Amino acid sequence: MPLRIFVDLVAPPDALQLLREGTTGHELVFPLKPAASVLAKGDVDPQFATVDVAFGQPDTQAIAEAKRLKWVHISSAGITRYDNAQFRALAAARQLPVSNSSSVYDEPCAFHVLSFMLAQARQLPAALKSRAANGAPEWQALRSACVPLRGQTALILGYGAIARRLVELLRPFEMKLVAYRRKARGDEGVPVIGEDQLPRTLGEADHVLNILPESTETRHFFDAARFASIKPGAVFYNIGRGGTVEQNALLQALRSGQLKAAWLDVTDPEPLPENHPLWAEPNCFITPHIAGGHAHEAQSLVRHFLGNLERFIRNEPLKDRVM
Amino acid sequence: MPLRIFVDLVAPPDALQLLREGTTGHELVFPLKPAASVLAKGDVDPQFATVDVAFGQPDTQAIAEAKRLKWVHISSAGITRYDNAQFRALAAARQLPVSNSSSVYDEPCAFHVLSFMLAQARQLPAALKSRAANGAPEWQALRSACVPLRGQTALILGYGAIARRLVELLRPFEMKLVAYRRKARGDEGVPVIGEDQLPRTLGEADHVLNILPESTETRHFFDAARFASIKPGAVFYNIGRGGTVEQNALLQALRSGQLKAAWLDVTDPEPLPENHPLWAEPNCFITPHIAGGHAHEAQSLVRHFLGNLERFIRNEPLKDRVM
Repeated sequence: MPLRIFVDLVAPPDALQLLREGTTGHELVFPLKPAASVLAKGDVDPQFATVDVAFGQPDTQAIAEAKRLKWVHISSAGITRYDNAQFRALAAARQLPVSNSSSVYDEPCAFHVLSFMLAQARQLPAALKSRAANGAPEWQALRSACVPLRGQTALILGYGAIARRLVELLRPFEMKLVAYRRKARGDEGVPVIGEDQLPRTLGEADHVLNILPESTETRHFFDAARFASIKPGAVFYNIGRGGTVEQNALLQALRSGQLKAAWLDVTDPEPLPENHPLWAEPNCFITPHIAGGHAHEAQSLVRHFLGNLERFIRNEPLKDRVM
Repeated sequence: MPLRIFVDLVAPPDALQLLREGTTGHELVFPLKPAASVLAKGDVDPQFATVDVAFGQPDTQAIAEAKRLKWVHISSAGITRYDNAQFRALAAARQLPVSNSSSVYDEPCAFHVLSFMLAQARQLPAALKSRAANGAPEWQALRSACVPLRGQTALILGYGAIARRLVELLRPFEMKLVAYRRKARGDEGVPVIGEDQLPRTLGEADHVLNILPESTETRHFFDAARFASIKPGAVFYNIGRGGTVEQNALLQALRSGQLKAAWLDVTDPEPLPENHPLWAEPNCFITPHIAGGHAHEAQSLVRHFLGNLERFIRNEPLKDRVM
């Protein structure tokens, strides 16, 4: 039976072509007014009420009103917009499966945070600016500031697909890896701690890797008290969501030297205002929310959707189902 | 029997203290005029004629004249100064064992080149400067420029201890790894090619990792012809020795776009002169010969020497013996 598939995905022609080819026999419905960005809230499109499948970043209100809708596939790994009690209740009541694109973004995100860890360990920001001569005091200082990762402790907060891949990548480094997760499942491959052990573990970790999603529970998870419990001289990384960090507390932790450095791919807001003090902080390194980005990203998203479309049609379990 | 050990090592007090403690019962002999740097050629010290062991960067002429000398332990991984037919003949004729400090530097060097690969893959130099808004063309361009490493080919030239560790670190990346080595030993863990297959493999590699030592054979190994055989758009890395690259040919390869980028920890000379065009090349990234550097480096060197000193006294095989 042909499906009407609503697609609000900002994608170049090659990816749209791939989508058209992969959905032959079905009908693609594009928004009348295209969304400006995957994270912007789109207007409710009147066509939405008539579709069977939504692929992209559909509006929650539109989903609530769309009685024919049988499956929602979100074109991002983050599901902040949908991750609330009201929407979860709606999806449950309607038995509406919701899948996301986390397998498209796991690997680039894991590599992004790894690039942060190595750039910090090897002092790349300072070293790439330096023209120090062999033997000079600046050269000695740069070399001494390079930190061997072997034997150091890394605490990973938020143990989803990104963390899982990161743990694989870190395996040969011979670090001590610990994960923080609300409920341990036993298949993490690393020791898992809960809330009760968090302060002690934060006090032991040389690397604090924040991959927490944003939700009411994780909003400002890293506040002044949390930063104060971190081991002095640790490095903080955030590739989760900016809202999980109380940025003024982060700033103070950097200024006091509690943190040696912070590497952020996400902030709140994005980008930070021009005059935000984190821009000027010498040990704060910020990339503009690109951790999931990669060449041919839209094609990867389309391929992932098409894989799930086949599963949906065959009534098989969806990949990356989140509700 | 107490040994007289000549030590020309630039080291902070904690490392010298460690050396004194570890050599109790033996006699440490320090140069009358300390060397300015591990790579500078020191004057011949009259005390040298009376020592049993030399630890540091001893002068080859001094070694030739020092008839009592029974073992030379070099405080670097590079042995350019000693790696020539004349010195090898001398060491062979005198049955003088020569060891180096490569195990002190393998791991930091492997991590340094890995930091280069990831910084390139994740576009860190551009991303750390960017304040692009989510969805902006600059943001899209940055994300698209990030390259997944999975499935890409990396050719490693020079297969010693650094390469071996690098291969371990790269294992979970699921790249295609190939090594170039004059003589394959069969224990490399990756396919090894020789001179005959080099042009074809250079034409297939996305990452060309130069870890060649400098010798008469490798001087200007990467010349215009070699760069021309590299796959267009590949990335070139050098953490070996600057003299293995004909720098003008490298510059041309970057300017023509044959190379997408070059990441260099070594140049010829070091540092490059202020007005050298490689400084201004937008896709050339240079660190000042710090790949082997790490916190407490001198202590690591001393510990490595002390381990070998025990082996020497017990007449056991030396670690990192190079001649």
